Amino acid sequence: MSAQNQGQNASPLRLGIAGLGTVGTGTVKIIQKHAALLALRAGRPITVTAVCARDRRKNRDLDLSGYGWEEDARALALREDVDVFVELIGGDEGIAREAVTAALRAGKDVVTANKALLAIHGQELAELAEANGRVIRFEAAVAGGIPVIKAMTESLSGNEIRRVMGVMNGTCNYILTRMESAGLPYEEVFEEARQLGYLEADPTLDVGGIDASHKLAILSAIAFGTRPSFDAVEIEGIERVSIDDIRRAADMGYRIKLLGVAQMTGRGLEQRMSPCLVPADSPLGQLQGGTNMVVIEGDAVGQIVLRGAGAGEGPTASAVMSDVVEIARGVRMPSFGQPAATLARPQPARTAVPAAYYIRLQLTDKPGALAKVATVLGDAGISIDRMRQYGHSRTEGVAPVLIVTHKTTPEAIDHAIEALPRTGVIAGEPVELRIEEV
Amino acid sequence: MSAQNQGQNASPLRLGIAGLGTVGTGTVKIIQKHAALLALRAGRPITVTAVCARDRRKNRDLDLSGYGWEEDARALALREDVDVFVELIGGDEGIAREAVTAALRAGKDVVTANKALLAIHGQELAELAEANGRVIRFEAAVAGGIPVIKAMTESLSGNEIRRVMGVMNGTCNYILTRMESAGLPYEEVFEEARQLGYLEADPTLDVGGIDASHKLAILSAIAFGTRPSFDAVEIEGIERVSIDDIRRAADMGYRIKLLGVAQMTGRGLEQRMSPCLVPADSPLGQLQGGTNMVVIEGDAVGQIVLRGAGAGEGPTASAVMSDVVEIARGVRMPSFGQPAATLARPQPARTAVPAAYYIRLQLTDKPGALAKVATVLGDAGISIDRMRQYGHSRTEGVAPVLIVTHKTTPEAIDHAIEALPRTGVIAGEPVELRIEEV
Repeated sequence: MSAQNQGQNASPLRLGIAGLGTVGTGTVKIIQKHAALLALRAGRPITVTAVCARDRRKNRDLDLSGYGWEEDARALALREDVDVFVELIGGDEGIAREAVTAALRAGKDVVTANKALLAIHGQELAELAEANGRVIRFEAAVAGGIPVIKAMTESLSGNEIRRVMGVMNGTCNYILTRMESAGLPYEEVFEEARQLGYLEADPTLDVGGIDASHKLAILSAIAFGTRPSFDAVEIEGIERVSIDDIRRAADMGYRIKLLGVAQMTGRGLEQRMSPCLVPADSPLGQLQGGTNMVVIEGDAVGQIVLRGAGAGEGPTASAVMSDVVEIARGVRMPSFGQPAATLARPQPARTAVPAAYYIRLQLTDKPGALAKVATVLGDAGISIDRMRQYGHSRTEGVAPVLIVTHKTTPEAIDHAIEALPRTGVIAGEPVELRIEEV
Repeated sequence: MSAQNQGQNASPLRLGIAGLGTVGTGTVKIIQKHAALLALRAGRPITVTAVCARDRRKNRDLDLSGYGWEEDARALALREDVDVFVELIGGDEGIAREAVTAALRAGKDVVTANKALLAIHGQELAELAEANGRVIRFEAAVAGGIPVIKAMTESLSGNEIRRVMGVMNGTCNYILTRMESAGLPYEEVFEEARQLGYLEADPTLDVGGIDASHKLAILSAIAFGTRPSFDAVEIEGIERVSIDDIRRAADMGYRIKLLGVAQMTGRGLEQRMSPCLVPADSPLGQLQGGTNMVVIEGDAVGQIVLRGAGAGEGPTASAVMSDVVEIARGVRMPSFGQPAATLARPQPARTAVPAAYYIRLQLTDKPGALAKVATVLGDAGISIDRMRQYGHSRTEGVAPVLIVTHKTTPEAIDHAIEALPRTGVIAGEPVELRIEEV
């Protein structure tokens, strides 16, 4: 048997692909372009039975003539000649959820790129898959082409995971790095990103940190053996990150990233998504543009860093296809790395573990002003690692002051930030940002 | 059933572990420490039936009392109460090869960290495993805890791989970065590394690039669907890298790395391991100390970067355990990502694809000297991208000259390097190093 024919004798794995947007189109392209290679690697041909999408007439620059067409994703999911339902529609409710549920109930395996669906209904879907002896796989749901789901469920199975962190929304990282490189304010770069088509239809999904938090919730379920709990993620978007803070942070050797962090602490599961300072020379600090990065820390492996394109046709379709090939190979795996029934209900940590903080404030030109600020911090139990006062602005009569604290609690910082304006020596609101140790 | 007991009802997967050095010890520690977690994730308990090592009396700070002891790895491999033979002895011949072969013939699955064995006998062992319906897995053989074998065989199965590159010998990267940071010559840092115990008993395995080339041969087999062909790797170690070149390269914005590169070209499979210049601000350029990095480029996924500890007890044992858990889960996979019989015999490329080169030479203080150098390069068809002449040394009367060429062929460079001394205007031998586009 020649190499090319190997695998052609086994029964094909037949896909029904719902959704022909960027990812669906990319997936069909890979299947068409690499049919022989996929059969060789999967041990059997991978074929498409039928597809469905909103608009049949849309020009997709794709030959769909060999495939059936379904108007309804649920009907596609139930077709007898479909083995795997590939859900690339998106959204945590509605048709995507209904069709995935129908597919699992009908005994189909499911591959999806739907982060919201998994972050919110992951427990229910994992249980449903197991009850029906099927799998639901979702490598493409987190960080595009970066194989982070596989790394966590499979490669690090011998580790107790200590912490998982990531820059997982390329649009936010594009905005933040572009603000720094071009010296432009948030609003202007946001508008640029919109015009470039980088933003979701509802941009708060990106800049509000929702999309990245869906991904974090999925990763933390795998990392800590807990039910996916998107509701428990503390979320703050990048809207309040100013060009001033980006510049000042750079002065102090940091970059600002929308960073997701999940860790199991003595006080419960901490899941947070927020703008954080990281050292400019760390792998996370050096991440430019739309690239994603996930950092995983395990007790045996130490720190693993995975970097790649977090979105886009090719990278996301590559992740979809890795799940499809695994199913074709007969690999069965519990969705979150252990049986769904064993996933614990997480106790959310009410507060983050201590960290160093960056504080920026505008000091008025009064004698003893800095002493008053220092007193407030001292009274809150916060000690100062580094402080820098810039010259007073002639027009506004205020001097920017930057403070990097030693490790302290979020409560102490909140207390200080609340107390600072009452000193009467600062103008406007002070800004605080967490400095994540990476 | 409680989460802790889940998986305890299934039959255990019973290991025979041969070799209790760093990796073997680390593996036993994980099995003991994480017994419940492993059972949960694997769906069944993972137990150790027996172990073997050179010296039974050696103090390993490890409780081996629950395990049998075998004096001979082959006997361990053949035990009826062993399901998986874990080979952590090392070496491409002798007992490791014999015991692995015996285990596969006896119908055992094999997990190994043995890069030399796989790079040299990988084809034979993969065929043997398939003929016996077993698997041989070797995640720990390449880049320690970095899950690169899994990424390539599974996560990127929808991609045609374009190129795979890596810094995969931590000792060499330690030596090169230490030379730069401390400004010390090669010989001195080599001696430091030896005293720190960073070097293999035969240090040419490290500094001669052999160890890293074993890893590259394994990766390129998976990447390009070819038989592992260590013999075809063009290997150059780091012995000729001077502190001068490290400093001059830094002046031009580069760092020198022992870089493995494999790519399929029109002229055949190119596999080379050599000191290369990479941009100082690239992920590879920024890699410090003993950390490893693998960069994979696929047609769909684009560029993926994986970074982590390339050696050490915990990271390597983590990789061993990921293979063990996969076997416990019932995952069966062809060793190199496709059936062994379909791996092509690679046609080795006789020459590397064109690249920019760095040339350093010592110019004597004669009129027209630089023009003669430029003429030699021009005659060889090499055009100059950047050139920098430093001041003449008063004691030696020579001026260091650095040249960064535009893309050119290795043949043109060889020709120029050979012709340069004949100009009579340079002192000593010119140095050339490839600049890899990353």
